[in-house]
Amino acid sequence: MLDVCLLGCGGSMPVPNRYLTSLLVSYKGRKILIDCGEGTQVSMKIVGSGFKSIDAILITHFHADHIAGLPGILLTIANSGREEPIYIVGPPGLKNVVEGLLTIVGGLPYELRLIEGPNSDIEISDFKIKTLPLEHTVPCLAYSLYIRRRPKFDAEKAKERNIPIQLWGRLQNGESVILEGREYKPQMVLGEERKGIKLCYATDSRPVFSLASFAKDSDIFICEGMYGDIDALEKAVKNKHMLFSEAAFLAKEGKVDRLWLTHFSPSLLEPEKYIENAKNIFENTQIGEDRKVISLKFK
Amino acid sequence: MLDVCLLGCGGSMPVPNRYLTSLLVSYKGRKILIDCGEGTQVSMKIVGSGFKSIDAILITHFHADHIAGLPGILLTIANSGREEPIYIVGPPGLKNVVEGLLTIVGGLPYELRLIEGPNSDIEISDFKIKTLPLEHTVPCLAYSLYIRRRPKFDAEKAKERNIPIQLWGRLQNGESVILEGREYKPQMVLGEERKGIKLCYATDSRPVFSLASFAKDSDIFICEGMYGDIDALEKAVKNKHMLFSEAAFLAKEGKVDRLWLTHFSPSLLEPEKYIENAKNIFENTQIGEDRKVISLKFK
Repeated sequence: MLDVCLLGCGGSMPVPNRYLTSLLVSYKGRKILIDCGEGTQVSMKIVGSGFKSIDAILITHFHADHIAGLPGILLTIANSGREEPIYIVGPPGLKNVVEGLLTIVGGLPYELRLIEGPNSDIEISDFKIKTLPLEHTVPCLAYSLYIRRRPKFDAEKAKERNIPIQLWGRLQNGESVILEGREYKPQMVLGEERKGIKLCYATDSRPVFSLASFAKDSDIFICEGMYGDIDALEKAVKNKHMLFSEAAFLAKEGKVDRLWLTHFSPSLLEPEKYIENAKNIFENTQIGEDRKVISLKFK
Repeated sequence: MLDVCLLGCGGSMPVPNRYLTSLLVSYKGRKILIDCGEGTQVSMKIVGSGFKSIDAILITHFHADHIAGLPGILLTIANSGREEPIYIVGPPGLKNVVEGLLTIVGGLPYELRLIEGPNSDIEISDFKIKTLPLEHTVPCLAYSLYIRRRPKFDAEKAKERNIPIQLWGRLQNGESVILEGREYKPQMVLGEERKGIKLCYATDSRPVFSLASFAKDSDIFICEGMYGDIDALEKAVKNKHMLFSEAAFLAKEGKVDRLWLTHFSPSLLEPEKYIENAKNIFENTQIGEDRKVISLKFK
């Protein structure tokens, strides 16, 4: 089960009761944060989340509303007793930005491992992570996270191949075993690949066609909707953001299961007023709000 | 009238409903921030404060709980339409830290003027600012802010010296005037100096004797009290912080009017439980809390 919690849904500047952009994703107790605007650690505390099992922080881009919470998060993780390395992934320039922010952090009891994207071959814990360059005012990456589903155990196949029954469990768990000089591999007892769970997260950007393919078949597509109404199109074009309708169009093209809108303009105090602008295009749209959660299961 | 608002009273890490360390001081519509931990701009929005008239940000030291809110504040000030320069004051190393944090800020529509302390000869708007090095794990400064009070107008003195009555108002306002070849100076019509308003702010530090002199006769002394109870003395010594009783001792020695305790440990969820530990030493002690305010008048 992939647990998703939208820690903050605010863009640009915080408004009271709306934290800046951040998403928390957990699978089997291991956590990944995507973006961490100012206040992210407070929002995590409000949901009662621990900090020690955060294995990676993925940064879309280096605007303060997406990353200013990083120093605080790193210190609070340190305080949780973490000693294992933490990955920080981000667009080009990551090293310079992280070094800049570390001037107010001091020593950390764990190593930071930086991965500068674009990079679509990242594996952290059980997460397979891909990135896609977006179209914003600075280099910006969308992320997709994929949890692979283990193929079904095929008892017939195991019997046909005379696999000793005491090895079934280990093979089923993906382990290779050598017994009495013969090597047994998981594929000897496993059936066909099954679809895993896919999450796609994209902010900030103008709509780009490649994003629809990148988000293809996601269980959840979390996408910026800086402005609700078509009247804001000029602003959206100028500031390189999206309207609700543009995010919905991408969701439809990508045939995703559901769309959550996020990263609302501080002037958009009641985003739900504009939801029909998205639903008219993609029915299963929901307005994001701070600490909105969903648990996604394998189908 | 000097308006004081404790925007955040949390030390180290935020806890829900307790913002990190920051103080807002306003006089005649001009504002100074002392420290700006993560979330400071949200606390300012909650009290309905504007951002455009912030003339200076004074940083005690470069731990994230005192400065991580700086990028967000600078951007929100930019968004308010500010174009006049802003002063940032801090201990040695300021330039490096500000440059580091600016990696996530981009261009600002105003100039930043940095003043690296210790420096006790700073004048910004009507504020006379002094600094005092403290004893923390990194270089750290206490700040005192002083608003000078104009001496009383002395009509007898003015009459004795045959000052033309039409000049009285301008001289009283501190202006020098030349009329018919004669120079008139404010001191010709003004009485003795009168005590102004003094605020002293000190966090983080072990108690140092020089701080009592530095805070001398303050109308308000805002001082860290990381721990409430004497049982925490070992921790306070190790982490270079103060107990409530130590802050109270400094307040008493400095003969200040009132003491506000701030910068509470995240483990100190009910600081008011320990107030007697301070009051036994210095009666006019109050427990700081987020957005606690006071307006200080000339006496």
